[in-house]
Amino acid sequence: MYTVDLNCDMGEGFGAYIIGHDDEILNYITSANIACGFHAGDPSIMKKTVRNALRKNVAIGAHPGLPDKLGFGRREINISPEEAYDIVVYQIGALHAFVASEGAKLQHVKPHGALFNMAVKNAALSKAIAEAVYKVDPELILFGLSGSELVKAGEKIGLKTANEVFSDRTYQEDGTLTSRQETNALITDHGKAVNQVIRMVKEGKAPTLQGRDIPIKAETVCIHGDGQTALEFAKYIPEALKKEGVTVTAIGNFIHQ
Amino acid sequence: MYTVDLNCDMGEGFGAYIIGHDDEILNYITSANIACGFHAGDPSIMKKTVRNALRKNVAIGAHPGLPDKLGFGRREINISPEEAYDIVVYQIGALHAFVASEGAKLQHVKPHGALFNMAVKNAALSKAIAEAVYKVDPELILFGLSGSELVKAGEKIGLKTANEVFSDRTYQEDGTLTSRQETNALITDHGKAVNQVIRMVKEGKAPTLQGRDIPIKAETVCIHGDGQTALEFAKYIPEALKKEGVTVTAIGNFIHQ
Amino acid sequence: MYTVDLNCDMGEGFGAYIIGHDDEILNYITSANIACGFHAGDPSIMKKTVRNALRKNVAIGAHPGLPDKLGFGRREINISPEEAYDIVVYQIGALHAFVASEGAKLQHVKPHGALFNMAVKNAALSKAIAEAVYKVDPELILFGLSGSELVKAGEKIGLKTANEVFSDRTYQEDGTLTSRQETNALITDHGKAVNQVIRMVKEGKAPTLQGRDIPIKAETVCIHGDGQTALEFAKYIPEALKKEGVTVTAIGNFIHQ
Amino acid sequence: MYTVDLNCDMGEGFGAYIIGHDDEILNYITSANIACGFHAGDPSIMKKTVRNALRKNVAIGAHPGLPDKLGFGRREINISPEEAYDIVVYQIGALHAFVASEGAKLQHVKPHGALFNMAVKNAALSKAIAEAVYKVDPELILFGLSGSELVKAGEKIGLKTANEVFSDRTYQEDGTLTSRQETNALITDHGKAVNQVIRMVKEGKAPTLQGRDIPIKAETVCIHGDGQTALEFAKYIPEALKKEGVTVTAIGNFIHQ
Repeated sequence: MYTVDLNCDMGEGFGAYIIGHDDEILNYITSANIACGFHAGDPSIMKKTVRNALRKNVAIGAHPGLPDKLGFGRREINISPEEAYDIVVYQIGALHAFVASEGAKLQHVKPHGALFNMAVKNAALSKAIAEAVYKVDPELILFGLSGSELVKAGEKIGLKTANEVFSDRTYQEDGTLTSRQETNALITDHGKAVNQVIRMVKEGKAPTLQGRDIPIKAETVCIHGDGQTALEFAKYIPEALKKEGVTVTAIGNFIHQ
Repeated sequence: MYTVDLNCDMGEGFGAYIIGHDDEILNYITSANIACGFHAGDPSIMKKTVRNALRKNVAIGAHPGLPDKLGFGRREINISPEEAYDIVVYQIGALHAFVASEGAKLQHVKPHGALFNMAVKNAALSKAIAEAVYKVDPELILFGLSGSELVKAGEKIGLKTANEVFSDRTYQEDGTLTSRQETNALITDHGKAVNQVIRMVKEGKAPTLQGRDIPIKAETVCIHGDGQTALEFAKYIPEALKKEGVTVTAIGNFIHQ
Repeated sequence: MYTVDLNCDMGEGFGAYIIGHDDEILNYITSANIACGFHAGDPSIMKKTVRNALRKNVAIGAHPGLPDKLGFGRREINISPEEAYDIVVYQIGALHAFVASEGAKLQHVKPHGALFNMAVKNAALSKAIAEAVYKVDPELILFGLSGSELVKAGEKIGLKTANEVFSDRTYQEDGTLTSRQETNALITDHGKAVNQVIRMVKEGKAPTLQGRDIPIKAETVCIHGDGQTALEFAKYIPEALKKEGVTVTAIGNFIHQ
Repeated sequence: MYTVDLNCDMGEGFGAYIIGHDDEILNYITSANIACGFHAGDPSIMKKTVRNALRKNVAIGAHPGLPDKLGFGRREINISPEEAYDIVVYQIGALHAFVASEGAKLQHVKPHGALFNMAVKNAALSKAIAEAVYKVDPELILFGLSGSELVKAGEKIGLKTANEVFSDRTYQEDGTLTSRQETNALITDHGKAVNQVIRMVKEGKAPTLQGRDIPIKAETVCIHGDGQTALEFAKYIPEALKKEGVTVTAIGNFIHQ
């Protein structure tokens, strides 16, 4: 039997600015990655998003990013591992307070954007992030790109980890995502996207742009919450997975160390 | 027998910017109010300051401020009570994570600057702040100006509170501090400042600029960490208090609900 | 013969965040107030908005706000007149550079949100703002609420000024706008809004919530660029004005000292 | 006859935070690079620093940096050339407004920290920066590391440029500065530092860590304004240069296209 988690970035507005379709997306996902005020989000949006997720029984994770609201956390900043440790501790703590003040528990941590991407191959950075998560709460589950240094660093320090796969991004032979700079980075056809997810979940294999399949571990699938077709797609994926006999539930319900 | 806590604002640098003499001041105080990144402070400074306080056995509190680094949190911003709740939850959480990740516990919360001052007379704002503290952790002690709405709101919601007095500021007949805008706001003579503290702690009375003494509760005394004579003064006050038979210890050791 | 300017706030997105319908609104207005990065806007958006306005022959003004992106510049901050001077000089300069680098000229300055509102009755703040504008470029036209201290301060220092009126806000007997806190603050009926504008422009009179008409000078009319019906309304107003024989053109074409 | 400019970064405080010894350093330098609010500085500090420089007859330049106050503009951020163009236009404009409002003229532009360093070898970034300067005001002089891509880009677009050398940094054979990460990056001996400057100015040669002298153009020398011995050193350098028959004057007095 197959089980998978569906996660989506949430609470990425700021002040008067709104982004994404959080309220509706929450109907389809099982884990919400909530922005913590560095790349996006603010205290008021965090509280509101935490409450909405709890109301819909969606598990909550912290979504810490680089301190770069202007760049939405997508521009690499040359931070040291120690700085990465510090900003991750800070942001988990901030979100944790909103979750705790509602009587709930934080499930996971998923770094955002450039921080997530830098951690894919940077072992020192990944170690610092994993350490930050572990020191704040060793029960937290660390999300990272499937097979990345971040997942390895999490395992090594003793965290539960979740190998994340993408439905709407193409893969390279080395297991990384095709850069958004290149054409063919995105999968816009829903059928194709869902097929990729199902193959990853059920067969443990991902197609690559080079033609060869690669082995891949799919414990949580990233759904994007903005863009034209996000909502439609968010609805389509869990339906298709269930039809294929895949149980869709929050990562905390089935992941073990 | 008399007992009092000595607190000081800490970790109020930012990035490359340094302010105050934290390392040395930590030798003389019993409770450190650590800035949380809104009016001052940043994740790296917070971690370092938490570690230094723990090393010196100084109890740790969150020092949340208005989101105004340019104004050092000293300019009133017309925020709603709900916004106050949100920014206080956020900042306590951020600092809590650094404390928890070092295996320690947060003792108290003391709002900073304009947020502290606005709460003196604003009951709705005070209620929101007290609620934020209570919801994050009902064991936290809430600091407020002695006799202020903030202290009352804390008591009402069920928090332990600490009535704070100032050694280097003059008082008005209504129990508020003389505004920094006015001359006579500051007490620069050390002897005079210490006498004021001793009277407040032992007799429960504060002299006022109007000439009449007023009753005052002194559970924690604020020491300033910057300025020319801060260090000298920080050293002088606990010595003088001890000479007068006053026990100086962290508020958590003697305050009760 | 009657002449009036139509202005709208523009470029109020930030990074990945989009707000308003700038491109379309530019078809209907004669003066664009472009955000300068403090309450909204960023360098890239400023450049793009300047270029778009120039392409559509819309005159350009700086729209400086309080340094509060989180609050979109709508929360009062207790700044000193000198701080107001400083932030206005800074922001005019930043926008001016984008305009100058495209070979064009800045027409006007209109403070945003809380800064605009605080200046209505605060003479010292208004004087500081007017001085900032004058010192950067005495040819700039200063926008202020019709009859406000800001307009008076501008006249006094020797600036050309533009008395601004609102189509979708109700007026009080003292010439101020009804606070958004109160019901009846907004006029949502387009016919009513246009009638108010036409009366203000042609008769020099504004209806008030108290029932009595008050004299008012209407040199520029504010159009809002966000909200559900903004676009529709922005299109409707100049059409109605022209039908009434009112010439709609940029303030710089008809205002004199 | 030999002529050289002495420049120093200035106005790099922020709000309540002070850095450097600007007032005193202004007595010894001929060109001040004033921070523009992105990596450091704020509107009030900019105004004050502009006024101080004018009072001491020191020529004024804009010192634009990356939008990273937390990192003091020293951390590389992966910005596009277009983003670099935008942030440079913005910051020059902001400073220009303070200079113009005092009835003076801006002399030059010197990028700060990581932006300066990234431009040394990055031709596309350098081109964007040079274009920003040129579009705002083609009379501005562009400062860049001697022999860098930035200087080349400035020359190519038609700007006057100033080849900058460092007194307290060691050089590599390729003309770059030794990275601060490495030991031997800094020259702490004043005699050695001054000798390096004199050789660069009079002989057009710089010693390198590899032992071989390299040809170098020295039109402006960077003096550091913070650090323990900054003041002493700032005083020592112009004295030593004058003793060697080198005229020390602002770059605008002797540089030609």
